[in-house]
Amino acid sequence: MKIHDATTAPNPRRVRIFIAEKGIEVPYEQVDIVNAVNRGEEFRTQKNPMGTLPVLELDDGTCIAESGAICRYFEELYPDPPLMGVDAQDKATVEMWNRRMEFELFQPTTLAFQQQHAFFKGRVPQVPEYAAVSKEKAEKSLAWLDEVLADRQYIAGERYTVADIVAQCAVDFGRVVKIAIQPDQKNLARWHEEVSARPSAKA
Amino acid sequence: MKIHDATTAPNPRRVRIFIAEKGIEVPYEQVDIVNAVNRGEEFRTQKNPMGTLPVLELDDGTCIAESGAICRYFEELYPDPPLMGVDAQDKATVEMWNRRMEFELFQPTTLAFQQQHAFFKGRVPQVPEYAAVSKEKAEKSLAWLDEVLADRQYIAGERYTVADIVAQCAVDFGRVVKIAIQPDQKNLARWHEEVSARPSAKA
Repeated sequence: MKIHDATTAPNPRRVRIFIAEKGIEVPYEQVDIVNAVNRGEEFRTQKNPMGTLPVLELDDGTCIAESGAICRYFEELYPDPPLMGVDAQDKATVEMWNRRMEFELFQPTTLAFQQQHAFFKGRVPQVPEYAAVSKEKAEKSLAWLDEVLADRQYIAGERYTVADIVAQCAVDFGRVVKIAIQPDQKNLARWHEEVSARPSAKA
Repeated sequence: MKIHDATTAPNPRRVRIFIAEKGIEVPYEQVDIVNAVNRGEEFRTQKNPMGTLPVLELDDGTCIAESGAICRYFEELYPDPPLMGVDAQDKATVEMWNRRMEFELFQPTTLAFQQQHAFFKGRVPQVPEYAAVSKEKAEKSLAWLDEVLADRQYIAGERYTVADIVAQCAVDFGRVVKIAIQPDQKNLARWHEEVSARPSAKA
């Protein structure tokens, strides 16, 4: 088993933190995203037709792509500590918050980069105006998240979950597009300090 | 328990089909999306701060939003028939395909509508150029999906899953933005005919 990884990209970090929180060891193999090896014919044919990272390759050669799907795999095999909820209502609640973090924060933040940055020129069709709209959406989401975190320790409630990991990766990646926690967002800053102090944050 | 629903919107249909496939009965309450009741202060405060539908309201008043999270709730409570996989690898595989259907097909299709249609004017910031890019992405995804379905009955393999439901809702909603299965996409057409013949398709 190994994970096709890229340490500078935001999605692979979601999986690395998740795995670190589980306390398991999985070998990582770096893919040269600067030279777009992941978007090449070989990688698309053999690993992931979408050309995205990370990809979990099992010992029989089966490849599982999509960060959320890879996290699901490890959650099922190593349920302790639970990062995706413990019963029907809790699992649904964690998934709701995880999706909110994906759609309201992570995705707008990465789109703010992807839709205008030179790195993605020629890799995806770029609409710089949509980058601006996305940046504004991500910034609004940070303001909203600051309110959410006023009365709870973590994003989905009183337990650290995958939703915190997604938000953490979004906030940290936001630096490259100048999306930042504002000085008056004290709850968000407190939360960010806490998740950043966990050993998994180095992953 | 009830579900806050809107029969003309694409996301709520994902949940209705999922529930129909499970063979369970849940009362639906229609929300007036034409007059944006879901985006109003009352709905946002009491049901879902995102202002989106569907929302599952439990008997104790707890509200769970996000289609994928609501499906998860019912999958956990009613595991038969399984629509999200049966073991770690299968669950991860279904989630991978579900996310591909969400990000490569459902989201571009709904963005092709949302980013240019009068219905969303003033509701979200619109970038018509991004609507065009999204439409093109959805159309490319249909062509790719036609290849995927050449050697399997359903999207995630040999079992009907939530990934089929997401793709079905995307394809059917595509009509409003003229995103359609092409005459040469025979595998996709075969699949669409099959999922459309299931009783759940009427949900």
